[in-house]
Amino acid sequence: MPIVTIQQFPRPLEQKRELARRITQAFAEVYGAEEASVQVFFSEVDGEDWAKGGVMGCDRKPE
Amino acid sequence: MPIVTIQQFPRPLEQKRELARRITQAFAEVYGAEEASVQVFFSEVDGEDWAKGGVMGCDRKPE
Amino acid sequence: MPIVTIQQFPRPLEQKRELARRITQAFAEVYGAEEASVQVFFSEVDGEDWAKGGVMGCDRKPE
Amino acid sequence: MPIVTIQQFPRPLEQKRELARRITQAFAEVYGAEEASVQVFFSEVDGEDWAKGGVMGCDRKPE
Amino acid sequence: MPIVTIQQFPRPLEQKRELARRITQAFAEVYGAEEASVQVFFSEVDGEDWAKGGVMGCDRKPE
Amino acid sequence: MPIVTIQQFPRPLEQKRELARRITQAFAEVYGAEEASVQVFFSEVDGEDWAKGGVMGCDRKPE
Repeated sequence: MPIVTIQQFPRPLEQKRELARRITQAFAEVYGAEEASVQVFFSEVDGEDWAKGGVMGCDRKPE
Repeated sequence: MPIVTIQQFPRPLEQKRELARRITQAFAEVYGAEEASVQVFFSEVDGEDWAKGGVMGCDRKPE
Repeated sequence: MPIVTIQQFPRPLEQKRELARRITQAFAEVYGAEEASVQVFFSEVDGEDWAKGGVMGCDRKPE
Repeated sequence: MPIVTIQQFPRPLEQKRELARRITQAFAEVYGAEEASVQVFFSEVDGEDWAKGGVMGCDRKPE
Repeated sequence: MPIVTIQQFPRPLEQKRELARRITQAFAEVYGAEEASVQVFFSEVDGEDWAKGGVMGCDRKPE
Repeated sequence: MPIVTIQQFPRPLEQKRELARRITQAFAEVYGAEEASVQVFFSEVDGEDWAKGGVMGCDRKPE
C-alpha cells in the first residue's frame, strides 16, 4: 500500500516509466510514504473496450 | 464520473457498442447524469483467467 | 459474470435499484446473458475522495 | 459474491487452477459460503505495466 | 504483487483474518511467492450497494 | 480517461488534495493529457480491511 491502478489508452513504455516515477515521488513527498511501498498498475484499454458518452472510443477521436 | 467497469467474457464489438449505449442512457434517464460524463470500460477475461466455484472457466462450460 | 462495478457519487437507493434493473436487462437483451449471472456493485465516493482535473470534488461543484 | 480479483504477474494455467481451487475452498470453510458463489478473476500484468518503488518491473528483477 | 481485492458482504474481523491467512498461504505454496509480497484488500458492500439478477441485495435474501 | 484509483490507508483531505494535484500534473506533462480528462479516486481501507503477508493491518504496525 498504496496501490495505484491506472485505466488508460496504451502508452509507450518510456512514458509509463516516467509517470510511475513521478507518481511514486508524489506519494513519498506528500504522504511521507516509503517509495518501496508504492505499486503502480497500468491497465490499458483500446477504443474497442471503452466508451464515453455512450460512444465507443473506436468510433470517435481519442481524447 | 460515473465510471463503469465491466468484467466479462470477450464479446463482439457490436454487442459492446450497444451495451455501452444503453448503460449510458440508463444513467442519463435514472440519475439525470450528462451522457458525456459516463465512461464504460470493458475488462475481458477468457476461461483461463476466471474461475467459478473453484473451477476454471476453460474446464467448464461458459455461462 | 458479468460483474459491473460503478464508481459514482452517492445516490438514493431508489435510483440505484432502477439503474441496476436496467443494466441487468441490457445484458440480458444485448448479450443474451441470464439475468441471474449479472452482478452490479456500487462503489460510492464523496467529494473528499475524488478529483477531476486536479481539483477535489469538495472544492468544485459536482457534475 | 464474493468476487476476488487478483493482480499478478502471468502464471501457468495449472497454478491458477490450483490457486482458485484453494481460495474458493477457504471461502467455503471460513465464511460458510457456497462454493458456486465464489468467482475469481486473474488480471495479469507484465513488467511493462507495473512499477514498484517507482521502477518498472521490466527494469528490475521480478519478486 | 500479487494484490488481491475481495468484493463481499461485511464479515467479522475474525473471519477476514483467517481468510487472509489462508489466501496468503495458498500463494506461497502454489506460486512459491514470498508471503510478505501478498496484499489482500476487503471491499465490503451491503445490500444497498449490490444487485444480482437486477434485484438489490436489500430486497432479497443474502446468499 | 485516464482514471486513477488509489487503494490506501485513510489520509487527511489536505494530503489527498495535494496528491491529486501532482498526479494530474504528471499526466499533463508526461502524456500531454488534458488535465480535465484525469480523474482520481481514493479508496481508503483501514487495518481491518487489509492484510499484508497474511497479517491484518490492525494486528501489525502500519507501513
